[in-house]
Amino acid sequence: LGEEALTVTTLQGIPEVRPGDDIPALLIAAIERSGLVPRARDIVVVAQKIVSKAEGRYLDLATVEPGRRAQELSALTGKDARLIEAILSESAEILRAAPHVVIAVTRHGFVMANAGIDQSNLEAGDGGRRVLLLPERPDLSAQHIKARLDAQFRTEVGVIVSDSAGRAWRLGTVGVAIGAAGVPSLLDRRGEMDLAGRALEVTEVGFADAVAAAAGLAMGEAAEARPAALVRGLAWSGPPRPAFSLVRPKSQDLFR
Amino acid sequence: LGEEALTVTTLQGIPEVRPGDDIPALLIAAIERSGLVPRARDIVVVAQKIVSKAEGRYLDLATVEPGRRAQELSALTGKDARLIEAILSESAEILRAAPHVVIAVTRHGFVMANAGIDQSNLEAGDGGRRVLLLPERPDLSAQHIKARLDAQFRTEVGVIVSDSAGRAWRLGTVGVAIGAAGVPSLLDRRGEMDLAGRALEVTEVGFADAVAAAAGLAMGEAAEARPAALVRGLAWSGPPRPAFSLVRPKSQDLFR
Repeated sequence: LGEEALTVTTLQGIPEVRPGDDIPALLIAAIERSGLVPRARDIVVVAQKIVSKAEGRYLDLATVEPGRRAQELSALTGKDARLIEAILSESAEILRAAPHVVIAVTRHGFVMANAGIDQSNLEAGDGGRRVLLLPERPDLSAQHIKARLDAQFRTEVGVIVSDSAGRAWRLGTVGVAIGAAGVPSLLDRRGEMDLAGRALEVTEVGFADAVAAAAGLAMGEAAEARPAALVRGLAWSGPPRPAFSLVRPKSQDLFR
Repeated sequence: LGEEALTVTTLQGIPEVRPGDDIPALLIAAIERSGLVPRARDIVVVAQKIVSKAEGRYLDLATVEPGRRAQELSALTGKDARLIEAILSESAEILRAAPHVVIAVTRHGFVMANAGIDQSNLEAGDGGRRVLLLPERPDLSAQHIKARLDAQFRTEVGVIVSDSAGRAWRLGTVGVAIGAAGVPSLLDRRGEMDLAGRALEVTEVGFADAVAAAAGLAMGEAAEARPAALVRGLAWSGPPRPAFSLVRPKSQDLFR
Protein backbone atom coordinates (compact mmCIF):
# COMPACT_ATOMS: atom_id res chain seq x y z
CA LEU A 1 0.00 0.00 0.00
CA GLY A 2 1.01 3.58 -0.50
CA GLU A 3 2.95 5.19 2.25
CA GLU A 4 1.42 8.44 3.35
CA ALA A 5 4.70 10.24 3.65
CA LEU A 6 3.63 13.66 4.56
CA THR A 7 0.55 15.39 5.90
CA VAL A 8 0.09 19.11 6.37
CA THR A 9 -2.71 20.12 8.71
CA THR A 10 -3.61 23.77 9.02
CA LEU A 11 -4.24 25.04 12.53
CA GLN A 12 -7.60 26.76 12.72
CA GLY A 13 -9.04 29.49 14.86
CA ILE A 14 -5.94 31.52 15.64
CA PRO A 15 -7.32 35.00 16.31
CA GLU A 16 -5.98 38.27 14.92
CA VAL A 17 -2.58 38.71 16.58
CA ARG A 18 -1.60 41.94 18.33
CA PRO A 19 1.69 43.15 19.79
CA GLY A 20 2.54 41.29 22.97
CA ASP A 21 0.33 38.31 22.16
CA ASP A 22 1.71 34.95 23.23
CA ILE A 23 2.27 33.03 20.00
CA PRO A 24 3.21 29.74 21.70
CA ALA A 25 0.00 29.87 23.74
CA LEU A 26 -2.05 30.56 20.61
CA LEU A 27 -0.36 27.64 18.85
CA ILE A 28 -0.86 25.31 21.80
CA ALA A 29 -4.57 26.17 21.90
CA ALA A 30 -4.90 25.67 18.14
CA ILE A 31 -3.06 22.34 18.24
CA GLU A 32 -5.26 21.14 21.09
CA ARG A 33 -8.37 22.22 19.19
CA SER A 34 -7.13 20.31 16.15
CA GLY A 35 -7.12 17.03 18.02
CA LEU A 36 -3.52 16.42 16.99
CA VAL A 37 -1.13 15.16 19.63
CA PRO A 38 2.31 16.45 18.67
CA ARG A 39 5.03 13.88 18.46
CA ALA A 40 8.75 13.88 17.78
CA ARG A 41 9.62 15.19 14.31
CA ASP A 42 6.35 16.96 13.77
CA ILE A 43 7.15 20.40 12.42
CA VAL A 44 5.01 23.40 13.31
CA VAL A 45 5.20 26.08 10.62
CA VAL A 46 4.22 29.59 11.68
CA ALA A 47 3.70 32.48 9.29
CA GLN A 48 6.17 35.31 9.77
CA LYS A 49 3.31 37.74 9.79
CA ILE A 50 1.91 36.66 13.15
CA VAL A 51 5.36 36.34 14.70
CA SER A 52 6.18 39.88 13.60
CA LYS A 53 2.86 41.18 14.88
CA ALA A 54 3.29 39.55 18.28
CA GLU A 55 6.77 40.99 18.47
CA GLY A 56 5.38 44.43 17.71
CA ARG A 57 7.43 44.83 14.54
CA TYR A 58 5.15 47.55 13.19
CA LEU A 59 6.57 50.71 11.77
CA ASP A 60 4.45 53.80 11.21
CA LEU A 61 5.74 55.32 8.01
CA ALA A 62 4.48 58.73 9.19
CA THR A 63 7.35 58.71 11.69
CA VAL A 64 10.00 57.99 9.05
CA GLU A 65 12.15 60.79 7.65
CA PRO A 66 13.53 59.75 4.26
CA GLY A 67 17.19 60.59 3.71
CA ARG A 68 18.79 61.54 0.42
CA ARG A 69 19.47 57.96 -0.72
CA ALA A 70 15.86 57.02 0.02
CA GLN A 71 14.67 59.96 -2.04
CA GLU A 72 16.90 58.97 -4.94
CA LEU A 73 15.69 55.37 -4.83
CA SER A 74 12.12 56.58 -4.51
CA ALA A 75 12.51 58.61 -7.71
CA LEU A 76 13.98 55.59 -9.46
CA THR A 77 11.46 53.03 -8.26
CA GLY A 78 8.29 55.07 -7.81
CA LYS A 79 7.94 53.73 -4.28
CA ASP A 80 7.14 55.88 -1.24
CA ALA A 81 10.40 57.45 0.00
CA ARG A 82 9.47 56.62 3.60
CA LEU A 83 9.03 52.96 2.68
CA ILE A 84 12.42 53.05 0.96
CA GLU A 85 13.96 54.57 4.08
CA ALA A 86 12.47 51.70 6.10
CA ILE A 87 13.85 49.20 3.58
CA LEU A 88 17.30 50.79 3.83
CA SER A 89 17.28 50.57 7.60
CA GLU A 90 16.27 46.88 7.46
CA SER A 91 18.90 46.04 4.83
CA ALA A 92 22.56 45.21 4.70
CA GLU A 93 22.66 45.91 0.99
CA ILE A 94 20.38 46.94 -1.87
CA LEU A 95 20.97 44.45 -4.68
CA ARG A 96 18.70 45.85 -7.36
CA ALA A 97 16.41 48.82 -7.75
CA ALA A 98 14.21 49.40 -10.78
CA PRO A 99 10.73 50.80 -11.42
CA HIS A 100 8.38 49.19 -8.83
CA VAL A 101 11.15 46.87 -7.56
CA VAL A 102 13.64 46.95 -4.70
CA ILE A 103 15.53 43.74 -3.95
CA ALA A 104 17.57 43.88 -0.77
CA VAL A 105 19.68 41.70 1.48
CA THR A 106 18.08 41.92 4.89
CA ARG A 107 20.16 42.32 8.00
CA HIS A 108 19.63 38.57 8.52
CA GLY A 109 21.14 37.86 5.09
CA PHE A 110 17.93 36.96 3.24
CA VAL A 111 17.45 38.37 -0.24
CA MET A 112 13.89 39.63 -0.49
CA ALA A 113 11.79 42.20 -2.24
CA ASN A 114 11.39 45.30 -0.06
CA ALA A 115 13.69 43.67 2.54
CA GLY A 116 10.74 41.52 3.55
CA ILE A 117 8.68 44.51 4.69
CA ASP A 118 5.00 43.67 4.47
CA GLN A 119 2.36 46.21 3.51
CA SER A 120 -0.57 43.89 2.98
CA ASN A 121 -3.03 42.15 5.23
CA LEU A 122 -2.59 44.69 8.01
CA GLU A 123 -5.59 46.00 9.85
CA ALA A 124 -8.05 47.95 7.78
CA GLY A 125 -8.30 51.67 8.24
CA ASP A 126 -4.71 52.60 8.96
CA GLY A 127 -4.40 54.30 5.60
CA GLY A 128 -1.44 52.21 4.53
CA ARG A 129 0.90 54.00 6.90
CA ARG A 130 1.80 51.02 9.04
CA VAL A 131 4.08 48.35 7.68
CA LEU A 132 5.30 45.16 9.27
CA LEU A 133 8.99 44.33 9.50
CA LEU A 134 10.48 40.83 9.69
CA PRO A 135 11.17 39.49 13.18
CA GLU A 136 14.45 40.82 14.49
CA ARG A 137 15.92 37.36 15.06
CA PRO A 138 13.60 34.78 13.46
CA ASP A 139 15.75 31.78 14.41
CA LEU A 140 15.48 32.90 18.01
CA SER A 141 11.72 33.39 17.63
CA ALA A 142 11.51 29.78 16.41
CA GLN A 143 13.61 28.57 19.34
CA HIS A 144 11.35 30.28 21.84
CA ILE A 145 8.26 28.78 20.25
CA LYS A 146 9.85 25.33 20.15
CA ALA A 147 10.82 25.47 23.83
CA ARG A 148 7.25 26.22 24.84
CA LEU A 149 5.71 23.59 22.54
CA ASP A 150 8.19 20.94 23.67
CA ALA A 151 7.47 21.68 27.34
CA GLN A 152 3.72 21.59 26.76
CA PHE A 153 3.60 18.43 24.69
CA ARG A 154 6.60 16.66 26.22
CA THR A 155 8.22 15.88 22.92
CA GLU A 156 10.67 17.41 20.45
CA VAL A 157 8.96 19.22 17.62
CA GLY A 158 10.54 21.31 14.92
CA VAL A 159 9.46 24.90 14.39
CA ILE A 160 9.78 26.95 11.21
CA VAL A 161 8.93 30.61 10.78
CA SER A 162 7.91 30.93 7.14
CA ASP A 163 7.52 33.74 4.67
CA SER A 164 6.79 33.76 0.97
CA ALA A 165 9.43 35.09 -1.33
CA GLY A 166 10.09 35.68 -4.99
CA ARG A 167 12.93 34.00 -6.78
CA ALA A 168 15.50 34.85 -9.39
CA TRP A 169 14.72 33.29 -12.77
CA ARG A 170 11.27 31.95 -11.86
CA LEU A 171 7.97 33.77 -11.49
CA GLY A 172 5.72 33.45 -8.49
CA THR A 173 6.39 33.32 -4.79
CA VAL A 174 6.95 30.17 -2.72
CA GLY A 175 7.23 29.61 1.00
CA VAL A 176 10.71 29.84 2.52
CA ALA A 177 12.06 29.42 6.03
CA ILE A 178 13.35 32.56 7.72
CA GLY A 179 13.57 31.02 11.18
CA ALA A 180 13.93 27.43 12.35
CA ALA A 181 14.56 25.37 15.46
CA GLY A 182 14.89 21.62 15.83
CA VAL A 183 15.11 20.93 12.10
CA PRO A 184 18.09 20.66 9.76
CA SER A 185 17.25 23.73 7.67
CA LEU A 186 20.07 22.80 5.35
CA LEU A 187 20.40 19.03 5.13
CA ASP A 188 23.94 17.94 4.47
CA ARG A 189 24.15 14.75 2.46
CA ARG A 190 27.86 14.86 1.70
CA GLY A 191 29.42 11.45 1.94
CA GLU A 192 26.22 9.67 0.94
CA MET A 193 26.27 7.54 -2.19
CA ASP A 194 23.78 7.18 -4.98
CA LEU A 195 22.38 3.82 -6.06
CA ALA A 196 25.38 3.32 -8.34
CA GLY A 197 27.77 3.84 -5.46
CA ARG A 198 28.90 7.22 -6.69
CA ALA A 199 29.04 10.28 -4.42
CA LEU A 200 25.79 12.22 -4.68
CA GLU A 201 25.96 15.27 -6.87
CA VAL A 202 23.35 17.09 -4.87
CA THR A 203 24.78 17.22 -1.42
CA GLU A 204 22.76 19.89 0.31
CA VAL A 205 19.00 20.00 0.46
CA GLY A 206 17.02 23.12 1.37
CA PHE A 207 14.92 21.08 3.77
CA ALA A 208 13.29 23.86 5.79
CA ASP A 209 12.50 25.81 2.65
CA ALA A 210 10.71 22.81 1.17
CA VAL A 211 8.74 22.34 4.40
CA ALA A 212 7.81 26.02 4.32
CA ALA A 213 6.74 25.69 0.67
CA ALA A 214 4.54 22.69 1.51
CA ALA A 215 2.98 24.48 4.47
CA GLY A 216 2.47 27.58 2.34
CA LEU A 217 0.38 25.56 -0.11
CA ALA A 218 -1.93 24.50 2.69
CA MET A 219 -2.01 27.84 4.44
CA GLY A 220 -2.65 29.72 1.21
CA GLU A 221 -1.87 33.34 0.79
CA ALA A 222 -4.59 34.27 3.25
CA ALA A 223 -2.07 33.41 5.96
CA GLU A 224 -4.08 35.70 8.21
CA ALA A 225 -6.84 33.10 8.42
CA ARG A 226 -4.58 30.04 8.60
CA PRO A 227 -1.25 31.33 9.87
CA ALA A 228 0.12 27.99 11.09
CA ALA A 229 0.28 24.35 10.07
CA LEU A 230 1.57 21.10 11.44
CA VAL A 231 3.66 18.97 9.10
CA ARG A 232 3.91 15.29 9.97
CA GLY A 233 5.71 12.35 8.47
CA LEU A 234 9.19 13.58 7.69
CA ALA A 235 12.31 11.73 8.72
CA TRP A 236 15.78 13.16 8.63
CA SER A 237 19.26 12.57 9.85
CA GLY A 238 21.66 15.25 10.84
CA PRO A 239 21.75 17.92 13.51
CA PRO A 240 19.33 20.82 13.71
CA ARG A 241 20.49 23.92 11.87
CA PRO A 242 18.92 27.36 11.94
CA ALA A 243 17.34 28.98 8.90
CA PHE A 244 20.38 31.23 8.77
CA SER A 245 22.31 28.22 7.42
CA LEU A 246 20.23 28.57 4.24
CA VAL A 247 21.81 31.92 3.47
CA ARG A 248 24.31 31.47 0.66
CA PRO A 249 27.48 33.33 1.67
CA LYS A 250 28.09 36.31 -0.56
CA SER A 251 31.47 34.89 -1.57
CA GLN A 252 29.71 31.79 -2.97
CA ASP A 253 26.90 33.66 -4.66
CA LEU A 254 27.33 34.28 -8.37
CA PHE A 255 24.02 36.14 -8.59
CA ARG A 256 24.39 39.23 -6.48
CA LEU B 1 -10.84 19.93 14.39
CA GLY B 2 -7.77 20.42 12.29
CA GLU B 3 -8.24 20.30 8.60
CA GLU B 4 -5.83 17.92 6.93
CA ALA B 5 -5.12 20.20 4.04
CA LEU B 6 -2.55 18.27 2.17
CA THR B 7 -1.29 14.72 2.00
CA VAL B 8 1.62 13.48 -0.04
CA THR B 9 1.72 9.74 -0.65
CA THR B 10 4.75 8.24 -2.32
CA LEU B 11 4.07 5.63 -4.97
CA GLN B 12 5.98 2.47 -4.24
CA GLY B 13 7.37 -0.31 -6.33
CA ILE B 14 8.10 1.50 -9.57
CA PRO B 15 10.88 -0.57 -11.13
CA GLU B 16 14.08 0.73 -12.67
CA VAL B 17 12.99 2.60 -15.78
CA ARG B 18 14.58 1.95 -19.17
CA PRO B 19 14.23 3.70 -22.53
CA GLY B 20 10.85 3.03 -24.08
CA ASP B 21 9.19 2.10 -20.80
CA ASP B 22 5.61 3.23 -20.46
CA ILE B 23 5.61 5.75 -17.59
CA PRO B 24 1.82 6.16 -17.47
CA ALA B 25 1.41 2.37 -17.19
CA LEU B 26 4.00 2.24 -14.39
CA LEU B 27 2.21 5.06 -12.57
CA ILE B 28 -1.21 3.45 -13.02
CA ALA B 29 0.10 0.19 -11.58
CA ALA B 30 1.73 1.99 -8.66
CA ILE B 31 -1.40 4.02 -7.93
CA GLU B 32 -3.52 0.85 -8.03
CA ARG B 33 -1.08 -0.90 -5.68
CA SER B 34 -1.29 2.09 -3.32
CA GLY B 35 -5.00 1.60 -2.83
CA LEU B 36 -5.59 5.25 -3.72
CA VAL B 37 -8.45 6.06 -6.05
CA PRO B 38 -7.47 9.20 -7.93
CA ARG B 39 -9.98 12.00 -7.87
CA ALA B 40 -10.26 15.46 -9.39
CA ARG B 41 -7.50 17.81 -8.26
CA ASP B 42 -5.16 15.09 -7.11
CA ILE B 43 -1.73 15.91 -8.47
CA VAL B 44 0.67 13.17 -9.52
CA VAL B 45 4.27 14.33 -9.27
CA VAL B 46 6.81 12.36 -11.31
CA ALA B 47 10.57 12.73 -11.00
CA GLN B 48 12.23 14.07 -14.13
CA LYS B 49 14.73 11.27 -13.91
CA ILE B 50 12.32 8.50 -14.82
CA VAL B 51 10.63 10.59 -17.49
CA SER B 52 14.01 11.27 -19.09
CA LYS B 53 14.98 7.61 -18.86
CA ALA B 54 11.77 6.43 -20.46
CA GLU B 55 12.24 9.00 -23.21
CA GLY B 56 15.75 7.66 -23.78
CA ARG B 57 17.40 10.97 -23.00
CA TYR B 58 20.77 9.38 -22.33
CA LEU B 59 23.90 10.78 -23.85
CA ASP B 60 27.12 8.81 -23.99
CA LEU B 61 29.87 11.34 -23.38
CA ALA B 62 32.29 9.11 -25.30
CA THR B 63 30.45 10.15 -28.45
CA VAL B 64 30.79 13.86 -27.75
CA GLU B 65 33.50 15.94 -29.42
CA PRO B 66 34.17 19.08 -27.38
CA GLY B 67 34.52 22.25 -29.40
CA ARG B 68 36.74 25.17 -28.58
CA ARG B 69 34.29 26.94 -26.29
CA ALA B 70 33.74 23.72 -24.34
CA GLN B 71 37.47 23.32 -23.93
CA GLU B 72 37.81 26.87 -22.65
CA LEU B 73 34.96 26.43 -20.18
CA SER B 74 36.41 23.10 -19.15
CA ALA B 75 39.72 24.76 -18.32
CA LEU B 76 37.89 27.43 -16.32
CA THR B 77 35.55 25.12 -14.43
CA GLY B 78 37.58 21.92 -14.11
CA LYS B 79 34.66 19.99 -15.58
CA ASP B 80 34.97 17.34 -18.30
CA ALA B 81 35.04 19.12 -21.68
CA ARG B 82 32.63 16.56 -23.12
CA LEU B 83 30.14 17.30 -20.35
CA ILE B 84 30.54 21.01 -21.05
CA GLU B 85 29.88 20.37 -24.75
CA ALA B 86 26.68 18.54 -23.76
CA ILE B 87 25.70 21.44 -21.51
CA LEU B 88 26.29 23.90 -24.35
CA SER B 89 24.11 21.91 -26.70
CA GLU B 90 21.30 21.76 -24.10
CA SER B 91 21.54 25.48 -23.33
CA ALA B 92 20.26 28.72 -24.73
CA GLU B 93 22.81 30.67 -22.70
CA ILE B 94 25.56 30.12 -20.15
CA LEU B 95 24.88 32.53 -17.28
CA ARG B 96 27.86 31.84 -15.05
CA ALA B 97 30.94 29.66 -15.17
CA ALA B 98 33.39 29.36 -12.30
CA PRO B 99 35.49 26.57 -10.80
CA HIS B 100 33.19 23.53 -10.40
CA VAL B 101 30.12 25.51 -11.47
CA VAL B 102 28.25 26.04 -14.72
CA ILE B 103 24.84 27.74 -14.51
CA ALA B 104 22.92 27.71 -17.76
CA VAL B 105 19.56 28.63 -19.22
CA THR B 106 18.21 25.45 -20.74
CA ARG B 107 16.54 25.45 -24.11
CA HIS B 108 13.25 25.35 -22.18
CA GLY B 109 14.21 28.54 -20.33
CA PHE B 110 14.99 27.03 -16.93
CA VAL B 111 18.09 28.25 -15.12
CA MET B 112 19.89 25.21 -13.74
CA ALA B 113 23.33 23.99 -12.84
CA ASN B 114 24.80 21.99 -15.73
CA ALA B 115 21.68 22.78 -17.78
CA GLY B 116 19.89 20.13 -15.73
CA ILE B 117 22.12 17.32 -16.98
CA ASP B 118 22.19 14.53 -14.44
CA GLN B 119 25.27 12.43 -13.76
CA SER B 120 24.12 10.66 -10.62
CA ASN B 121 21.89 7.70 -9.88
CA LEU B 122 22.47 6.21 -13.30
CA GLU B 123 23.10 2.51 -13.60
CA ALA B 124 26.26 1.24 -11.96
CA GLY B 125 29.16 0.18 -14.11
CA ASP B 126 28.89 2.62 -16.98
CA GLY B 127 32.05 4.37 -15.88
CA GLY B 128 30.38 7.75 -15.61
CA ARG B 129 30.18 8.13 -19.37
CA ARG B 130 26.44 8.23 -19.65
CA VAL B 131 24.54 11.28 -18.57
CA LEU B 132 20.83 11.98 -18.56
CA LEU B 133 19.36 15.06 -20.23
CA LEU B 134 16.11 16.76 -19.29
CA PRO B 135 13.02 15.70 -21.25
CA GLU B 136 12.87 17.50 -24.55
CA ARG B 137 9.42 18.99 -23.88
CA PRO B 138 8.54 18.34 -20.23
CA ASP B 139 5.17 20.13 -20.40
CA LEU B 140 4.24 17.79 -23.23
CA SER B 141 5.51 14.79 -21.23
CA ALA B 142 3.21 15.86 -18.40
CA GLN B 143 0.28 16.24 -20.81
CA HIS B 144 0.77 12.75 -22.16
CA ILE B 145 0.90 11.27 -18.67
CA LYS B 146 -2.19 13.22 -17.62
CA ALA B 147 -4.19 12.05 -20.64
CA ARG B 148 -3.47 8.41 -19.80
CA LEU B 149 -4.17 8.79 -16.08
CA ASP B 150 -7.41 10.68 -16.74
CA ALA B 151 -8.60 8.01 -19.16
CA GLN B 152 -7.72 5.22 -16.75
CA PHE B 153 -9.22 6.75 -13.64
CA ARG B 154 -12.03 8.72 -15.30
CA THR B 155 -11.21 11.94 -13.56
CA GLU B 156 -9.08 15.05 -14.04
CA VAL B 157 -5.77 14.84 -12.22
CA GLY B 158 -2.87 17.24 -12.39
CA VAL B 159 0.57 16.03 -13.39
CA ILE B 160 3.88 17.67 -12.55
CA VAL B 161 7.31 16.58 -13.77
CA SER B 162 9.68 17.62 -11.00
CA ASP B 163 13.38 18.14 -10.65
CA SER B 164 15.48 19.50 -7.83
CA ALA B 165 17.34 22.71 -8.41
CA GLY B 166 19.65 25.10 -6.65
CA ARG B 167 18.72 28.69 -6.09
CA ALA B 168 20.36 32.09 -6.17
CA TRP B 169 21.00 33.49 -2.67
CA ARG B 170 19.99 30.35 -0.75
CA LEU B 171 21.88 27.13 -0.23
CA GLY B 172 20.41 23.70 -0.85
CA THR B 173 18.23 22.31 -3.58
CA VAL B 174 14.44 22.20 -3.57
CA GLY B 175 11.95 20.56 -5.88
CA VAL B 176 10.73 22.59 -8.84
CA ALA B 177 8.29 21.90 -11.65
CA ILE B 178 9.77 21.57 -15.12
CA GLY B 179 6.62 20.16 -16.69
CA ALA B 180 2.97 20.42 -15.75
CA ALA B 181 -0.49 19.63 -17.04
CA GLY B 182 -3.87 20.32 -15.47
CA VAL B 183 -2.51 22.62 -12.74
CA PRO B 184 -2.02 26.37 -12.65
CA SER B 185 1.78 26.29 -12.47
CA LEU B 186 1.74 30.00 -11.90
CA LEU B 187 -1.32 31.01 -9.94
CA ASP B 188 -2.49 34.48 -10.79
CA ARG B 189 -4.10 36.27 -7.88
CA ARG B 190 -4.28 39.73 -9.40
CA GLY B 191 -7.49 41.47 -8.53
CA GLU B 192 -7.88 39.64 -5.23
CA MET B 193 -7.98 41.70 -2.06
CA ASP B 194 -6.37 41.19 1.31
CA LEU B 195 -8.34 41.17 4.54
CA ALA B 196 -8.05 44.96 4.72
CA GLY B 197 -9.56 45.32 1.26
CA ARG B 198 -6.31 46.36 -0.32
CA ALA B 199 -4.99 44.76 -3.52
CA LEU B 200 -2.70 41.86 -2.66
CA GLU B 201 0.97 42.66 -2.92
CA VAL B 202 1.86 39.11 -3.82
CA THR B 203 -0.12 38.44 -6.93
CA GLU B 204 1.53 35.41 -8.44
CA VAL B 205 2.19 32.18 -6.62
CA GLY B 206 4.66 29.54 -7.83
CA PHE B 207 2.06 26.86 -7.23
CA ALA B 208 3.56 23.97 -9.19
CA ASP B 209 6.99 24.66 -7.72
CA ALA B 210 5.60 24.46 -4.20
CA VAL B 211 3.85 21.19 -5.03
CA ALA B 212 7.10 19.85 -6.45
CA ALA B 213 8.94 20.95 -3.31
CA ALA B 214 6.40 19.19 -1.10
CA ALA B 215 6.60 16.02 -3.18
CA GLY B 216 10.38 16.22 -3.16
CA LEU B 217 10.37 16.11 0.64
CA ALA B 218 8.41 12.88 0.57
CA MET B 219 10.26 11.32 -2.32
CA GLY B 220 13.62 12.19 -0.83
CA GLU B 221 16.75 12.48 -2.87
CA ALA B 222 16.70 8.75 -3.58
CA ALA B 223 14.12 9.54 -6.22
CA GLU B 224 15.17 6.28 -7.85
CA ALA B 225 13.38 4.34 -5.14
CA ARG B 226 10.36 6.64 -4.85
CA PRO B 227 10.16 8.50 -8.14
CA ALA B 228 6.52 9.55 -7.89
CA ALA B 229 4.00 10.82 -5.38
CA LEU B 230 0.34 11.69 -5.25
CA VAL B 231 -0.55 15.03 -3.67
CA ARG B 232 -4.10 15.36 -2.43
CA GLY B 233 -6.09 18.15 -0.83
CA LEU B 234 -5.23 21.24 -2.80
CA ALA B 235 -7.84 23.61 -4.13
CA TRP B 236 -7.22 26.30 -6.68
CA SER B 237 -8.97 28.63 -9.02
CA GLY B 238 -7.69 29.65 -12.35
CA PRO B 239 -6.93 27.87 -15.58
CA PRO B 240 -4.19 25.27 -16.01
CA ARG B 241 -0.86 26.71 -17.05
CA PRO B 242 2.24 24.80 -18.10
CA ALA B 243 5.47 24.84 -16.12
CA PHE B 244 6.89 27.05 -18.82
CA SER B 245 4.75 29.87 -17.36
CA LEU B 246 7.10 29.79 -14.34
CA VAL B 247 10.02 30.96 -16.45
CA ARG B 248 10.71 34.59 -15.68
CA PRO B 249 11.16 36.39 -19.00
CA LYS B 250 14.71 37.59 -19.43
CA SER B 251 13.47 41.16 -19.79
CA GLN B 252 11.94 40.96 -16.29
CA ASP B 253 14.88 39.22 -14.67
CA LEU B 254 17.28 41.45 -12.78
CA PHE B 255 19.51 38.51 -11.88
CA ARG B 256 20.90 37.17 -15.09
